[in-house]
Amino acid sequence: MGWLSVSAHRVEVDATDGLARTGRVVTPRGSYPVPAFMPVGTRGAVKALDSGDLEGLGAHVVLANTYHLMLRPGAEVVAALGGLHRFTGWSGHTLTDSGGFQVHSLKPTVDDDGVTFASVYDGSSKRLTPESAVEIQGLLGADTQMVLDVCATLPATPAALRVAVDRTADWAGRARERHRTLEQRPEGQALYGIVQGGTDEILRAESAERTVALDFDGYGIGGLSVGEPRPAMLATLAATLPLLPDDQPRYLMGVGDPVGMLEAVALGVDQFDCVAPTRLARHGAIWTSDGKLSLRRASNASDDRPLDPECSCTTCARWSRGYLRHLLVLGEPTAWRLLSIHNLHFVLTLMGEARASIAAGTFDALRARVRDTWET
Amino acid sequence: MGWLSVSAHRVEVDATDGLARTGRVVTPRGSYPVPAFMPVGTRGAVKALDSGDLEGLGAHVVLANTYHLMLRPGAEVVAALGGLHRFTGWSGHTLTDSGGFQVHSLKPTVDDDGVTFASVYDGSSKRLTPESAVEIQGLLGADTQMVLDVCATLPATPAALRVAVDRTADWAGRARERHRTLEQRPEGQALYGIVQGGTDEILRAESAERTVALDFDGYGIGGLSVGEPRPAMLATLAATLPLLPDDQPRYLMGVGDPVGMLEAVALGVDQFDCVAPTRLARHGAIWTSDGKLSLRRASNASDDRPLDPECSCTTCARWSRGYLRHLLVLGEPTAWRLLSIHNLHFVLTLMGEARASIAAGTFDALRARVRDTWET
Repeated sequence: MGWLSVSAHRVEVDATDGLARTGRVVTPRGSYPVPAFMPVGTRGAVKALDSGDLEGLGAHVVLANTYHLMLRPGAEVVAALGGLHRFTGWSGHTLTDSGGFQVHSLKPTVDDDGVTFASVYDGSSKRLTPESAVEIQGLLGADTQMVLDVCATLPATPAALRVAVDRTADWAGRARERHRTLEQRPEGQALYGIVQGGTDEILRAESAERTVALDFDGYGIGGLSVGEPRPAMLATLAATLPLLPDDQPRYLMGVGDPVGMLEAVALGVDQFDCVAPTRLARHGAIWTSDGKLSLRRASNASDDRPLDPECSCTTCARWSRGYLRHLLVLGEPTAWRLLSIHNLHFVLTLMGEARASIAAGTFDALRARVRDTWET
Repeated sequence: MGWLSVSAHRVEVDATDGLARTGRVVTPRGSYPVPAFMPVGTRGAVKALDSGDLEGLGAHVVLANTYHLMLRPGAEVVAALGGLHRFTGWSGHTLTDSGGFQVHSLKPTVDDDGVTFASVYDGSSKRLTPESAVEIQGLLGADTQMVLDVCATLPATPAALRVAVDRTADWAGRARERHRTLEQRPEGQALYGIVQGGTDEILRAESAERTVALDFDGYGIGGLSVGEPRPAMLATLAATLPLLPDDQPRYLMGVGDPVGMLEAVALGVDQFDCVAPTRLARHGAIWTSDGKLSLRRASNASDDRPLDPECSCTTCARWSRGYLRHLLVLGEPTAWRLLSIHNLHFVLTLMGEARASIAAGTFDALRARVRDTWET
């Protein structure tokens, strides 16, 4: 091994309950408990929130989007301002995606060498290769970066899935190589590989094998929760997770709904990211211990109860449904923040409950309760 | 006197320096120090902030706009949700304007009995009279309400000013009468009269005399900072303030710039409100100990200094100009909040310095320093 040992990022498992596991991801910065939900700070801030809010919420890892930051303000500017942690005033853990998923949604031109896409900001042509994605994320300086992958929208033809898997594996190797020798990045910065393959278990197994062979610091499972039914997602996960190393983080990308996360935890997933809790909050879809509350409904206008009487967040401690609905329907940014705080608190608390129940051997009861609340 | 004694709201002066004075406005809720700046929570929240932010900033009085709240969510809804304090989660002092100033800007139909205007929300026709403004503010339940007045835009013809003064005086009498017998309001809720008269010192004196004769709990000086040169505003203030009772609050409405406030304090004003600090913040005009900083300028893009190295606000403690500019130019609501916190901290700190320097007999030095910073 070189100076960057794989063991700089590893999972220390404290307890298991079935396939579900809890413990800590240990990193050069410290550690964070898993299972973990990572709020998404797209452009360097979770929409309407700041790093102090995330501290108050007890978040441990915050994600930022390489695609957005490379365009505005530019990775060099973030580097000049001290890297992502100092830039955003966040001393917890950070993770940057590779930009691949955002680029994917822009219908880019993909060739064997990389992707070409138009900037959403000024329409200019931009290029990402596996190597440049590593370099850009080196400048951004998160604790963890992700390889540039190729994500096929589901349903996809076998040929499209095959190309996605082959390119992802090829690009993973190039990214791994570039990352090993890259000087302009934080010492000990992790690089995660990403497993693709749609819902084809044979392709997933091949992708997992080729990715694991490259010896990454952790593994993303990409290309799920992109339109397929949940049972297909879970079957794919169940087939893929056993092929990943036990002592490294397993990250299911883009999943953040209560049932989806707990079902994935039940299969052994360690961490998640998703914009849903905050995006839905800004549209008035509130997650509560009793299921979803549609705050915009007129019936909430004079309701002086908190969003969720069971909730201990700062929003529920102080403001009524009536007040929050008033601000929301008028488009007041104060509402976006207070409702985002609530929904993030809900998701982060749920992950805390998952950890505690795995440790107590009662995870299935939690899972059943949440499924019961959300699927009836 | 009836059950509502004037002494329920009074100024206790601790020190004077020339005509400037510092002390406390004592109310049934407690007291707040003066000179005071009151942040404006237009629709029940200072734009992008919440009541916790205002507590953190050390604000003492928060203003809300009757015009907006009577239309959305409606005064009855605010009352049903416990009144303005409980609605907004704010345990400090509150003040509601009468709606007159907002209505005025909508080119209403004014007659001797009241004003008719179109709602900005749905275009429907709405009516405010001196009596209904009192009733609505009674339902809103702030610590202090303001009479419905008639504000003439400057420059105004003598005839327009005369009508404004006459109607304001007549309406003040009707408001005072309605307020005395109104049951649906907090016990001890104050009602302030408003002095009008443009920059005509004789009309101002008449307006002051007619208003004071009605025995209000405090006095607003309205119709200034509406287009006239600052010397005219200050000359008018200088002529008006000696005609108001020494032991009651004097509130210069709509002024919130550093020099304007200190010059008015020098003449004996106790309190101010203005949307400028927060509105300018959202547009990137930052107030600092060194004067105005235009944050949108490209030169700030890679600047890792705080907005104001002399500032002790939570924004300056944690984030760089570069980060804040990045969020601002992308229209991220996080920027609106962090920059509003900074500008409010600046103004509230300036008021604290005014109080301390009046007590120390060094107010003129503060005034000269601020004038020097902002007018060169």
